[in-house]
Amino acid sequence: MGTRNNLALLTDLYELTMAQSYFQSRKFESATFSLFIRSYPPNRGYFVSAGLEDVLDFLEDFCFDPGTIDYLHSKRMFTDEFLDFLKGLHFTGEVWAIPEGRLFFKDEPILEITAPIIEAQIVETFIINQINLQTLIATKAARCVHAARGRAVVDFSLRRTHGIDAGMKVARSSYLTGFSGTSNVLAGRRYGIPIVGTMAHSFVSSFERETDAFRSFVLSFPDNSTLLIDTYDPLAGTRKAIEVAREMAARGERLSGVRIDSGDLASLACEVRRILDEAGLVDVKIIGSGGLDEYDLAALSDTNVPYDSYGVGTKMGVSGDAPWFDMAYKLVEHNGRPVLKLSTGKVSLPGRKQLFRFVDGQGRLKKDAIALLNENLPEAEHLLKKVMEKGKAKDPHPNLKEIRECFLEEFNRLDEPTKAIRNPAAYPVELSPRLKQLKEKIEQQVAQTQ
Amino acid sequence: MGTRNNLALLTDLYELTMAQSYFQSRKFESATFSLFIRSYPPNRGYFVSAGLEDVLDFLEDFCFDPGTIDYLHSKRMFTDEFLDFLKGLHFTGEVWAIPEGRLFFKDEPILEITAPIIEAQIVETFIINQINLQTLIATKAARCVHAARGRAVVDFSLRRTHGIDAGMKVARSSYLTGFSGTSNVLAGRRYGIPIVGTMAHSFVSSFERETDAFRSFVLSFPDNSTLLIDTYDPLAGTRKAIEVAREMAARGERLSGVRIDSGDLASLACEVRRILDEAGLVDVKIIGSGGLDEYDLAALSDTNVPYDSYGVGTKMGVSGDAPWFDMAYKLVEHNGRPVLKLSTGKVSLPGRKQLFRFVDGQGRLKKDAIALLNENLPEAEHLLKKVMEKGKAKDPHPNLKEIRECFLEEFNRLDEPTKAIRNPAAYPVELSPRLKQLKEKIEQQVAQTQ
Repeated sequence: MGTRNNLALLTDLYELTMAQSYFQSRKFESATFSLFIRSYPPNRGYFVSAGLEDVLDFLEDFCFDPGTIDYLHSKRMFTDEFLDFLKGLHFTGEVWAIPEGRLFFKDEPILEITAPIIEAQIVETFIINQINLQTLIATKAARCVHAARGRAVVDFSLRRTHGIDAGMKVARSSYLTGFSGTSNVLAGRRYGIPIVGTMAHSFVSSFERETDAFRSFVLSFPDNSTLLIDTYDPLAGTRKAIEVAREMAARGERLSGVRIDSGDLASLACEVRRILDEAGLVDVKIIGSGGLDEYDLAALSDTNVPYDSYGVGTKMGVSGDAPWFDMAYKLVEHNGRPVLKLSTGKVSLPGRKQLFRFVDGQGRLKKDAIALLNENLPEAEHLLKKVMEKGKAKDPHPNLKEIRECFLEEFNRLDEPTKAIRNPAAYPVELSPRLKQLKEKIEQQVAQTQ
Repeated sequence: MGTRNNLALLTDLYELTMAQSYFQSRKFESATFSLFIRSYPPNRGYFVSAGLEDVLDFLEDFCFDPGTIDYLHSKRMFTDEFLDFLKGLHFTGEVWAIPEGRLFFKDEPILEITAPIIEAQIVETFIINQINLQTLIATKAARCVHAARGRAVVDFSLRRTHGIDAGMKVARSSYLTGFSGTSNVLAGRRYGIPIVGTMAHSFVSSFERETDAFRSFVLSFPDNSTLLIDTYDPLAGTRKAIEVAREMAARGERLSGVRIDSGDLASLACEVRRILDEAGLVDVKIIGSGGLDEYDLAALSDTNVPYDSYGVGTKMGVSGDAPWFDMAYKLVEHNGRPVLKLSTGKVSLPGRKQLFRFVDGQGRLKKDAIALLNENLPEAEHLLKKVMEKGKAKDPHPNLKEIRECFLEEFNRLDEPTKAIRNPAAYPVELSPRLKQLKEKIEQQVAQTQ
């Protein structure tokens, strides 16, 4: 709780200046804000929901401690009355959200918050910050798992994630979508994710001879050693690994695998596999790493390059080809009045909403419909669940492994063309007739009033 | 200190498995690791150093608390002897580094750490994580400041940075290179950065009429109001802002500015300027925002579009066109023996080093030379400073404003072609004859031994 409290200031200043202006205008009415993604980045055809757990924790703990009030006072922008109001402020609202690990699509509400307008507005920055990052990475990681076609994929990204928080959230978001583990030990501890690792080139070069480095490592980890074979020459490195594997066999031990981290990963794997097989080491696994992303994994899968698993780092950990989503948090209802924004290219959907998913007889995803909250479309699942009421989470957080299984199960029911790594097919998302009517009506009203 | 302690586990698992193997092989000799960037991303011709403060704090506090040891014990990978050793482990080494805010170039050592090999190895992940992010953002932000050609630029990125830590470090790194302020209130508090903000579209749409939203806001902030004019129609919005500005003038107040956040930012600014000027509001500033990066700013500068300042968000905050650097931390000397790595495309420079900068008679940057630590190239500045000795920082951290001034002063002395926003000219970096000789010698030795 201690460190969380201070996060009330992890916000854009304008949330606070708007809050003071709402306060001075005596605007305490209820408002609903809706979070959604306006467009797909290139080659994306779906999104994976992630980040809700942190948002709910943040909302439950939200408050301004005395130190934050002192700082705001020192800026001479805020009145004493408003700062007194902030001292007593907590989040008391209601949250509807798509659970973590569920698929969703462009324009669909991910989360809707209804609360007195100051509360609903002031939490915007943190909510976007966390949901954008975690959804971004979960989506990228899902693409990697899909492209690897059954081969294990592990997260090696910590050194190039954007800071500490990203390192933790990337480990969690990638595990959530089917990664087998992470190299991030702290994430292993905090989230209960399996931790994995091999050795670095520096370990090898700290020994005068590569073979001595291999020997030393397998003595320390006789049950689970993966030798990095490309510090100097990868084929010579493979032969040294075979030498060490034979020494292990003589002791009744078994070498787990070798890792290739540079060079032409496709042709090297084929050569290394051949050399290992000729030495009778058909059980020794080959792990590939070094700048891999889903495009590389798909190409390696297409030609059946004999990798058994992959370490995926930087390009997954920063979502290299699309490092942000066009995510927005928009006021959609104020004091019972549906509202929208008409800025060029940035139109939002008015009113409180529900999201419906239709499946076919085999359970395969057919289409979604965005509707108004009080609508009930028959034979469709309600995807927005009420997860917080009066500022308290309704249920304990779901277990991460359960979220992961739920994701994998639903992902399996999404058609391949929508999951394509390049140029995916559009998944059908409709607006309900009532939502469509409301949107047109409000657009006309706005055109007349403004 | 409390939260920092746990960061010992914010590491790749292989740092710990290698540490156990070093420990069991009784390898406690001194080693030097060197941090550098192997290549420029597209359109980059220089880098800006940032992140050292966090690295020094991390090294000073480095230790495994009882909870971390318990977790490692539970993984059944580590021996009791090794875990006992970790319990007593602190960082006792020496650090040489380029100070924050200095320019540097491809292949140059940013930081060299000399310590018993386990200590120098085990801190790798955190060091790359922080220096990569902060250098990445400082470099991107410097490009934005340069492209804005004297117009103020402020950081609006918090909602789309990769998590909390990135939000804080982006605010600091962008201020360091000349940004005027940040919207991130917590960063304002922690780092003493000026905080800035206007209003959101949701504020405007929470009022039935745009004019009422403007009126309410200027009543709350009569000395400093910037009105967002594009919630509906930006030109109609400008006329409403003028109406409110005239009401303010009648009260002896003055409207500070208007903000445009969508549409064709170039043509809108020209029209808005004309409308404001015709109304006699020549002092009302125009702020541009909405998906801007240095390429957009350069284009707006080229045609003298009448913006007075810019809010720069997402694309700076994630370094959108280049979200990572090819940064490596390599063993360069072990037990007095210079070492290197020969993996395809990933060759490193052996030995402990010093970096020299040569300037011309006017103080303009002429060339750099990478040399061995004990070399002394006459008439050149030593860029690697000894910043930590026996695990303790040698000096208090420099003040952020001083780092900022130092950066702006040196940046001004770098030639324009190297600073070009597209296709920059290569800055000359040489290897000293002695370093070149050593590299060739070690390459031959490696070829013979391995």
